[in-house]
Parts: sequence; C-alpha cells; structure tokens
Amino acid sequence: MSATDIPSSVVIVGGNYIGLEFASVYRSLGAEVEVVEMLPKIAPLEDDDISEALLKLLQRRGIKFHLGVTVAGAETTDSGVDVRIERDGKTEQLSAERMFVAIGRAARTDGIGLEELGVQIDRGYITVDSSFRTSVEGVFAIGDAVHVTDSDTPHPQLAHTAFAEGQKVAERIAGQDPTPVDYRNIPHVIYCQPEVAAVGLTEQKAKDLGMDVVAKRYPFAANARALMLGGGQGFVKTVAEKDGAVVGVHIVGPRASDLITEAQLVTSWEAYPSELAGTHASSPDAVGSHRRNVPRAGRQTAPRLAPASRNVV
Amino acid sequence: MSATDIPSSVVIVGGNYIGLEFASVYRSLGAEVEVVEMLPKIAPLEDDDISEALLKLLQRRGIKFHLGVTVAGAETTDSGVDVRIERDGKTEQLSAERMFVAIGRAARTDGIGLEELGVQIDRGYITVDSSFRTSVEGVFAIGDAVHVTDSDTPHPQLAHTAFAEGQKVAERIAGQDPTPVDYRNIPHVIYCQPEVAAVGLTEQKAKDLGMDVVAKRYPFAANARALMLGGGQGFVKTVAEKDGAVVGVHIVGPRASDLITEAQLVTSWEAYPSELAGTHASSPDAVGSHRRNVPRAGRQTAPRLAPASRNVV
Repeated sequence: MSATDIPSSVVIVGGNYIGLEFASVYRSLGAEVEVVEMLPKIAPLEDDDISEALLKLLQRRGIKFHLGVTVAGAETTDSGVDVRIERDGKTEQLSAERMFVAIGRAARTDGIGLEELGVQIDRGYITVDSSFRTSVEGVFAIGDAVHVTDSDTPHPQLAHTAFAEGQKVAERIAGQDPTPVDYRNIPHVIYCQPEVAAVGLTEQKAKDLGMDVVAKRYPFAANARALMLGGGQGFVKTVAEKDGAVVGVHIVGPRASDLITEAQLVTSWEAYPSELAGTHASSPDAVGSHRRNVPRAGRQTAPRLAPASRNVV
Repeated sequence: MSATDIPSSVVIVGGNYIGLEFASVYRSLGAEVEVVEMLPKIAPLEDDDISEALLKLLQRRGIKFHLGVTVAGAETTDSGVDVRIERDGKTEQLSAERMFVAIGRAARTDGIGLEELGVQIDRGYITVDSSFRTSVEGVFAIGDAVHVTDSDTPHPQLAHTAFAEGQKVAERIAGQDPTPVDYRNIPHVIYCQPEVAAVGLTEQKAKDLGMDVVAKRYPFAANARALMLGGGQGFVKTVAEKDGAVVGVHIVGPRASDLITEAQLVTSWEAYPSELAGTHASSPDAVGSHRRNVPRAGRQTAPRLAPASRNVV
C-alpha cells in the first residue's frame, strides 16, 4: 500500500475482493498482472454467474489467472520475485517485479488489554452476540474485529457494516432495544473494472435455503446507456422466490456500485418483481392515498407498494 | 440536430431541459454559449434550490445566462446571427455563429386522419382520460402527443412514460383493469453536466398541496466518492412530510441520473426517512420473516420494511 512506483509486472496472491481490485488498478496503470487463487473461482463469495463473467472480462483486459493452485513459496531475485505455485501436484514458477499478497484480513486484537479484561477471543476475533455484547458485561465490540456467534451469515468486513453496528450499540447503551443487523441484505462492491456489486442471496445460497428459485439475467448489451458507458459489458442477475420476493441482486458491469443502491431497497423490503415493474406505472390514487397528509409518527407498518398487476421481471 | 460542425458561439433560446442539455454539450465541445430564458429561473419545473445551484454550476463552466428576457427577433448576418432580446423594456443584441431554439415541443397530430375519425384534439394534443381513451370508442392514444384531462400533474413528454402508458393500454385491451399511471412519481433527468435528476414533489409543490414539509439537503462535498467523481459539486435534497413519507428527491451533481433509481422506489413506496435509514441495519428476523418461503401469488399488500427505529435523514 506504500508503493510509490508502478511495477512492470505483478503476481497477486488471492483472487477475492482486494486481490481483484489491485489486479484491476495495476493493469489500468500498465503492469502485466497474474492472479493466483487457491479456489477454482475468483470472487468466491459471489454468485457463480458473476464470478464466471468477471473472470472473462478481466481476462479480456489482459490479466492472467491461475485458479485452483497453491503457493508453495517465493524468493526475491535481482529482478524482483520468483513465485512457486502447485497445480495438480506439479510445481510451476511465476516471475514478476513484485508480489502482492491479498489472502484475507486478520483482526489486530493483541496487546490492547482484552485478555486482561477477560474478553473472549476466538482465533483473534472478539466474540460477540447479535447485540455486540462481548463476554464481559458493559464491553461491546463492532466492526472488522468481531465474530458474531448467533448470525447465519459470515460477518462482512465493511465500513458501512461497522457504522450500522456502532449505531446499534449506541442505541442499546441509550436504553433502546434496536433490532439486529440484517446481515443478509448488506450490499458490497468489488471496485475493479468492470465493477461488481451485489446484495442478498446468490442463486446457489437461495437454493441451499430450500427456496424455489427464479433467476433472471438482463444483459447490459441490451441497454443503450450501458453501451455508451462501458461497451455493454456485463449484466444484472436477479434471484427471486417463485411467486415471491426478490432475494438477491448481482451486477457486473459499468456503474454497478451506483445501481446496487436501488437493489438494496428491493431485497431489504422483500419486493416482488411485479411490484417493481409497476413502480412508475401505478397511481397513488389506486392504493394508499388515504395515508397522504396524515402524520404517522413512529409508523411500524410498511409503505404503499404498487399492486402486483404485472408479472414482468 | 443535423449540424455536423461545432460553432464557435451559440445563442440558445430556452433554459429548460433541452436548452440546458445542448448548452452543456456545446460548452463541453468548446463553444461560447449564451442561454436566453423568458422566466426568472432555468429548469423552471425543478425545485428552486436545484435551479439555483444548477445556474451557478453552469455559470462556473463559462455559460452565460439571460433570465427574464424575451426574444424580439433574430436576423442572419455574414458571421452568423444577431438575436434581439428585451429586458425590462430595453432591447439588447446578442451575436453568435448560430442560434438554437429549444422552447418546447408540439405534437405532430395533423394529417394522420384523426379529424376524419372524430378524435378530439386540444391545441394539437389528443385528449385522453387516465385510461388513454380518446373521444372515439376503441381508439387509444399515449405518449408525447396526448393531453390527459383527469390528471393533476402536467403530462411528462418522456420515453419511459410512453412505455408505461402503452403497457396500460395493452392491459386494458387484454381485458384487465390496470391502475392509472402515477404521474407524480415518474423520475426525470437533465443530461447536462453536472446532471440533474428528480422524482416526486418539489418543496414548493408539497407546500402548495398543504403538506407540513421537512426539507433536507445533503451536500456531495461531504461524500468522499462524490469528491472523487465530480469535485463534490451539488447535493441531494429530500422533501418529506413532517413525521411522514419522503415525497420528493432532487439531485444535482455527479451521477444524479444513476442515483435517482433508488429515489424512485422511495417516493413511489412512500417510505419514511427512518425506514430508509434502517435498511441495512435491521434484521429480517425482526419483521416479516414469517413470510419467507411462503408463495404469495398475486399479493396485494406491501412488503416488509425496516422498523422505524431511528429518525435519521
């Protein structure tokens, strides 16, 4: 992160978010880039269709990928670094001016007094419940350094997640009883080019949860504006329950990071495809207009939605 | 529209959408640009704060504006065109290589057989009700050429409005009973630089409708990403009812046209500010999770919303 020059070539170890972002930016800056990933797919937490499409689009930019390989070692040389990788039991060697390691983050919880207080730690992460209580009364923890024991979703190491968690803790300390964080519907972005953004469940995850899944893909090649912005690369994939709500939206392509804001409302509010298709085509006089001009402080019910009059995804 | 060269200077008559878009693009291409507008503000249908900010931002780009003036005449000259404008009863002259007239669109309904059929026309526009029925049984009309008699909102001449209207007509012909188009919540964009996008009511319009209005502005200068994209110019303005729903969102700044998609869901669904603030911070276990995995074909009710546990705009 402190490099001040652009290497002619880079081997990046790790094909997840950080590795892909740096692969993208180094390639944009003119470097030859090779990415080494242990798993058979890049961006392994993304929907399979997204990972597959992103791989092709990054390859088209000239980035090389070595998937399903492990790193056996690396040595500095006069010209940079030699990296030994193992593929199906055979060793190969990659050479580059620099190696960039992006194989995950660890929590820095040592030496800050947690052990002395008796705060429980699990493999470096502070153990908390969904209210962010540690094992010690009155001590809360949030953000990248925590492991939430009673969540069924991996804890996202994202700034906006930590913000939300901090607000929940503040509310609790203030005597309120905030609802748990909705980890399933936290959006995330891979800031590579093309961008990836997603919120909610992947198609596979929805199936694993027993849902009867309807997945649809809308190609940016069919959208004039996307053609102007990014050559029409990529697509939007929606994952919905049959006759039910949209539970996941996955985007690869130009301005995915901007488009995901709408998708976040969709999955958070469990909107139906037909309700979304009707948003600008249905009248407030038809439903809910009786609520206009009536102050409703502290309303707990849901707002008006367009009627499910159409079946368009 | 058929010009193939870039004039050194342009006088644009009309400071609404089309005029501003061409002022922006001609300026980007290097022309000296002056805009003449009869009303005291540009983009007269926008929220006052947006029009005012856009004026300053376009002036900063070197575009000159003459507001509250009328065009008394124009003559071609050897070097282009002389345009006479009247300001407070006094005549001034503007000279440019070209003049661009953008003072509104008219419907082309002449000579296509409407009179012969007996279809009622009002100042060139085909008169329809909110189901797009003309005065002749079995003849429908949609799009830029219609005047909707029973709508309290001016009819937007926008492609996506015409698409929605066409779908409604198709549904009606197919024997369905679609709800009217929600003209109040159709988003629109001014594709100038910086962009403007808006949906719902302006602050003034909300007040005119008798609402107790809470208006907030969030400056892009406070947002790191906006600083990177466009120098932090502009802001998002929300118009909400006190203790009630967001009824309007108005944006001037980078990527306004992308951001408005989220706002469209907000105003269409009458979301509360507190509900929006909670979208990624509230758990599906708290509300509505009982609906998961239950097929609900033809659901007419609204989806789950985050509880109104916070009061943040």
